[in-house]
This record gives sequence, C-alpha cells and structure tokens, in this order.
Amino acid sequence: MTNVYNFSAGPAVLPAPVMAKAQEEFCNFHGIGYGIMEASHRGPDFMQVAAEAEANIRELMGISDDYAVLFLQGGASTQFSMVPMNIMKDGGSADYADTGSWSSKAIKEAKLFGDVKVVTSSKADNYTHIPTIDPTSLNSEASYLHLTSNNTIFGTQYHAFPESPVNVPLVADMSSDIMCRPVDVSKFGIIYAGAQKNLGPSGVTLVIIRKDLADRAASTVPTMLKYSTHIDKESMFNTPPTFSIYMVKLVTDWLKDLGGLGAIAKMNATKAEKLYAEIDADPFYSCPAAVKDRSIMNVCFNCLTEDLEKTFLAEAKTKGLVTLKGHRSVGGIRASIYNAMPAEGVDTLIAFMKEFRAKHG
Amino acid sequence: MTNVYNFSAGPAVLPAPVMAKAQEEFCNFHGIGYGIMEASHRGPDFMQVAAEAEANIRELMGISDDYAVLFLQGGASTQFSMVPMNIMKDGGSADYADTGSWSSKAIKEAKLFGDVKVVTSSKADNYTHIPTIDPTSLNSEASYLHLTSNNTIFGTQYHAFPESPVNVPLVADMSSDIMCRPVDVSKFGIIYAGAQKNLGPSGVTLVIIRKDLADRAASTVPTMLKYSTHIDKESMFNTPPTFSIYMVKLVTDWLKDLGGLGAIAKMNATKAEKLYAEIDADPFYSCPAAVKDRSIMNVCFNCLTEDLEKTFLAEAKTKGLVTLKGHRSVGGIRASIYNAMPAEGVDTLIAFMKEFRAKHG
Repeated sequence: MTNVYNFSAGPAVLPAPVMAKAQEEFCNFHGIGYGIMEASHRGPDFMQVAAEAEANIRELMGISDDYAVLFLQGGASTQFSMVPMNIMKDGGSADYADTGSWSSKAIKEAKLFGDVKVVTSSKADNYTHIPTIDPTSLNSEASYLHLTSNNTIFGTQYHAFPESPVNVPLVADMSSDIMCRPVDVSKFGIIYAGAQKNLGPSGVTLVIIRKDLADRAASTVPTMLKYSTHIDKESMFNTPPTFSIYMVKLVTDWLKDLGGLGAIAKMNATKAEKLYAEIDADPFYSCPAAVKDRSIMNVCFNCLTEDLEKTFLAEAKTKGLVTLKGHRSVGGIRASIYNAMPAEGVDTLIAFMKEFRAKHG
Repeated sequence: MTNVYNFSAGPAVLPAPVMAKAQEEFCNFHGIGYGIMEASHRGPDFMQVAAEAEANIRELMGISDDYAVLFLQGGASTQFSMVPMNIMKDGGSADYADTGSWSSKAIKEAKLFGDVKVVTSSKADNYTHIPTIDPTSLNSEASYLHLTSNNTIFGTQYHAFPESPVNVPLVADMSSDIMCRPVDVSKFGIIYAGAQKNLGPSGVTLVIIRKDLADRAASTVPTMLKYSTHIDKESMFNTPPTFSIYMVKLVTDWLKDLGGLGAIAKMNATKAEKLYAEIDADPFYSCPAAVKDRSIMNVCFNCLTEDLEKTFLAEAKTKGLVTLKGHRSVGGIRASIYNAMPAEGVDTLIAFMKEFRAKHG
C-alpha cells in the first residue's frame, strides 16, 4: 500500500514533508555527526531548535512578551492539576464549562484544590453541543474560568469563545485544535495543549501562560509543578523532551510555509465542510453533533446500524483509510482531520463513503 | 566527518544499530503505511511496542510480578516530588543519602511532604566520594531510604548498595546508570530513571515500583501524580510518550542481543578501566573522584590547568571527540561512556589523550 490515510485521533498523522525531513537527518543532524535526539539539551544545536520552536509559535499565534511559551511534560492530564495548583487562589473557587469527558476530568482534578462551579454543561444531552454560558452565572471573584476548546470524543468545538469577567483569566485546554485557526491569545490567561494532535508527537505539552499568573503559586507547590520554575529557566529546568520539541519546530516551520494559521484555517474549513456535506446528503450517515458546534478537527458520524459501521471500518481499511473507529465510549465512526491530514485523504474518504452508501444503502 | 564520538552526559549517544533501525522505519512502521510516532497509543501496533519494551525490561533486570514497570513523564525531577507525595507516611519522615546535586534536589522536594533526615553526605568534600551510611543512623520507622546510584556531575557511583532497615523500602534514582550492570531489584522499593542516558531519548521516565507501596498515597494526590493510576492503567491512563517508549524498546532489544546486563557490565568496566588507567598514568591528568567510588558511566578529570582544559576540548573536537566539557558547576573534562558508547570511542579518546599529553605535558 502506498497511500494510507491515518485518521487517528491522536497521536495522529504528521505532515509528510516533516516526517521526511526528520527521517533524513535522524542520524546526522545538520552535519554534526549524530542525531538531535542524542544532543545535549544545553548544547548549541538543541538550544537553537528550542528557540526556533518557540519563535515559530509566538509568530504563528501572535503571542506577546506578556506571555511565556513553555514546553512541559505530562500532557493535558497533568495540566488538569497544574492549573489549579498554581492559580487557584487560597480558599478560592473556579468556574468550569463542562463540554465532554476531558472537561469532566479537568473538573475532577480542580476539586482537589478549591471550590469548583460547573457553570454550564451539555452532559444531559450526551455532550452533543457546546452549551452557552449565562454571563450572570459567572463568579466575578473566581480564580479563573476553564473550558475545553474542542472535544475529540463528541466532535464538538467552540467557534466563538465566551468572555470571562474582568480579572478572571480564561483558561483553555486546546489539545485537539491548537493552531487549527487564528485565536486571540490576549483573551486567555493560560492555553495548554498536548502536542499529539496538531503540533507533533506525544510527550510534549505546550503551555502559553500570562506571566503574572505564575506568581500566584504557593511555596508548597513542588518545583517541577510550578509554572514559575519553567518560566524562570525557559523550559530548561530539567531535561526537556528534546526530540518532541524538535518535531514541533518542524511542524511549525511547515505551518509557516503554508501561510500561517489563516491559511490552515481555510484548508481545515474546506476539508470539514466537504465531509459534513457528504454525511448530511442522505440519512444513511448521521452526525450526532449540533450543526452550529461541529468540530472541524474530529468528524464523528454513524451509519444506519452498528453492523454497517463494522463493515464500513473493515472495508475502509482495505482502501487504506485507517483508524476511523469512534472512541470506545461512544462508538461509531470518527475521522480526525487535523492540520496534517491532506485534502486528498478527505477526498478519498468521501469517495469511499459514496461507494459504501451506494452498495449498502 | 564520518566518525564522531559524542560524550554528552545526556541526552546521550544511542546505539548506532538502534538509530539506523529507527531511521529506516521512521515513516512506515512494519509496513502499516505511517510512522509509529503517528500511531494511536491504543492501537495494536503501539500496544505491542509498549508490551515488548516492558517485557524486555523485566527480562533484563529480572523483575518479579510484585513490581510494576511504568513509563511516565517529567524526568527524575518529577520523581523527586512524586516519591514523597505517594509513599511518605502521614506525619512521617524519610532518610536521604546526599551524594551530589541530584540528591540535594531530591531532598529539597521531599521536605515539602515530611520530615527529612540526611543520614550521610559528602558535600563537605565536594561530593568526591560516596559516603558510608552508619546503620545505626537509619530510622527503622522511616517511610523510605533514598539514594542516587550514580552522580553524573562528580563522577561517583555506588558499587554496593546499603541495606535499609526491615520494612523501610530503598528508593533509588538510577537515571544515569540504569541497566549498566545487573542489580537485584528485589532489594528496592522504587527505582526510577530518566531515559536519556542509558535507555533512550529524553521524555520518558522508567519507574519500577513494588506495587504495594502505591497504596500509601492519600486521596488528595492528583490523579496523574499517583503511581496507582499508572499501575491500574498500565501506563495508558493518558497518552504516553509513544516514540520515546518505542526507542526504549529498540535499545532494550539491542541490550538483549548483546547478552544482557552481565555482558554490558563487562564492556562498561573495560571501557572505564582503560580510561582511568590513562588518567592515572601521569599527573598531567587527574581525577577528583575517590578511586573506590569512581563511576563507570561518567569519567570526570582535569588537566594541569584550566587553560589546558580549554585547549583539550578544542583540539578533541577537531578529532571528532565532542561534548567532553564538564558540568558548568565543576568545570574540567567529562567523558560520559554510557552503554551505547562503543569501545572504539573510548580507544580514540585515549589515543588523543596520550597525544595531547605528549604535546602539552
């Protein structure tokens, strides 16, 4: 098979030119005689890679010097506790929007550190939409307001972000849609994202934090779990995940070459629109997510029956369309079409969907 | 330059056949049409890689089923707080051996969680030896006894481990000498190691823990920081650092092919003996570490003057002998000769040292 399209929800497909470049210089980075993976994190070669990765991210997202850009470890799951551990005020509370299982996990961890108020939830509707936030429900004294920008499992996404009250920083888990479109970073206190969907391999977590927020942490917070440690040492307090950061550098080089986040947003919108149009064309396929909140990253859909879904997955695989199975908690089909999924992958999937419907519909 | 020998203290040289294999299958793992880096952590391809990595480690180190083998994130620096957070008893204390800057950092974090007693220290001697532990100084009620098996900065290493009192688990940071020799795991409660010296790239931390110890953690410990979370989910609670684990799998395959830890220990001893013999041959070079405690992983030495050391580093580089500079806190020369450093690398270094001494001595 030469053309395989990998629709995995993460770790996920990476840009083909990025993979080719990383392969080419894997054993001999820029002629130094060994791989960047084998280079000291304090040596000039890796230091330059890390600096360029950060500069790329700052440029692509328009991040001001008021913010630190950190490369941490432990994924969004670790941020679920690091956020409240660092910025929950003493005896304070935080507001959370509950839009899926990742939000729920974040809420669970925050409860260890303060009073948590769930200000909106679509749980009763099985998370099929993004629930609105009544501004009067928000606590103007809250330590922060937390949301999950995209829900990989349910295929929903914020297309506009709520305003948080003055002096209440907005905190967003953007793991599954970071850099899929332009976002005004200045509206956020903290943005965090595991890299393994849109940024690179698993094992590195991007944290963008307004620097003043790091001052809130109590002295009892362990050194590695304090944002201030990593801000002070520019993510080099200890050995960072060097190869993963190198891959982020290559992916962000590629994004810049494509024209930045405005350009990739257009490509992503086109891919998603085509795919949803095919789903909506006939009741043979159906999408549980509310139209207004559909994700342009994770397109979840069903066939008429579960048996047809099994056949769909098996037949798709023979065409090189792989890892299309929905999350184990909801079933169905899920096509994750992150930045790196080429338009041809989506077109090939749509052609297969038409063929499958004609055969089994 | 075709033959470059990279003596970096970590991230460090990896076995050449491992690098070649990873490069070869980088974009197409076992014919699946994409890289293992792009594969879902819950898919059969990566699940098999992770299972084989664990099985290799269990086989190489002779680890019984009483122990869990975990792949975590955050490096040894995160373990410095995770250990006391999980196994310090309520209102309890822990004993620590202070043998260098890594021990000191571990001690600092432990103090956040309980009473810490430094039972031995070589700080007054600038950490040039491994201080003995007076058995009567150990607290038989301590939650655990902690040591650092090898000190990358000062070039010292335990060649025999102390006995901890009955019911006091021995905890060891083995980041810089894990799998350099056989170790009786059953003597330890927890062994942890950042991978970036002997196991693979940075970004994954090996934790070997006697399972019953994980039960000590309080319910207030965040989910990601609880060992029990990762034991219950077999390191798959969240997305693990998949590519780093894949590299560990390849490195441990290579170790098995070489004949296991007994075989690599002999090779390591031979490399270290030759290098120390050259250092000891003439006062032109000197080694600050006590002979009985010299590390077989990090060989630290000085030239007669600092100026000569600068010249040494510059001339060595022209011969393809790179990253030999000592840690910034102590200066001098440091040759890190981990498992993956070939004997030829050490022989080439020794030949250069003889030449340099003849020229400048």
